[in-house]
Amino acid sequence: MRYCFLLQVDPERLDEYKERHAAVWPEMLQALHDSGWHHYSIFARGDGLLVGYVEADNLDQAQQAMERTGVNTRWQAEMARFFGGRRPDQGFQVLEEIFNLEDQLGATR
Amino acid sequence: MRYCFLLQVDPERLDEYKERHAAVWPEMLQALHDSGWHHYSIFARGDGLLVGYVEADNLDQAQQAMERTGVNTRWQAEMARFFGGRRPDQGFQVLEEIFNLEDQLGATR
Repeated sequence: MRYCFLLQVDPERLDEYKERHAAVWPEMLQALHDSGWHHYSIFARGDGLLVGYVEADNLDQAQQAMERTGVNTRWQAEMARFFGGRRPDQGFQVLEEIFNLEDQLGATR
Repeated sequence: MRYCFLLQVDPERLDEYKERHAAVWPEMLQALHDSGWHHYSIFARGDGLLVGYVEADNLDQAQQAMERTGVNTRWQAEMARFFGGRRPDQGFQVLEEIFNLEDQLGATR
């Protein structure tokens, strides 16, 4: 399953947010992988709009698996300052997938 | 390369836009594939914000390759009504990728 979600970061802290995400803790990376997060990217617009894209068998379960890790608790606590004090992983706005090229190509063959 | 772009569709026509994208012309699907568009998904928010995710060697070149196809000209002409008369493929707002899990996992190993 492919998922896309939106987040809004404090625009004045976008540069710092980008710096933090250019070098995420290795333990956090491994926890994401082990929790079923795959092909996970974050994209940013200059005004602080963030777009996440991730593939997972089930995003709810992948999020719950992350929530059971200590490293996620530490990471999200450090990230809260970029989001007005809220934990960003609790403010995902998940969008609906309305098109996928490979799914439709496969269906026409 | 992974790309993410934003588009804004007329919210009153979002349902129709979704219907159209649930059954894209097979010729259009094939042209996208042949033009180097891969893992291409479109996601929608209720207010008409669209998020595109696509992997390509080079998005500019993949867009130019599509522009040389007749089917794209016909498709975009039909889509313009969802975007206030503008061709949507000429209004992409491309975001910056600031994180990718697999890239950073690979770098730490």
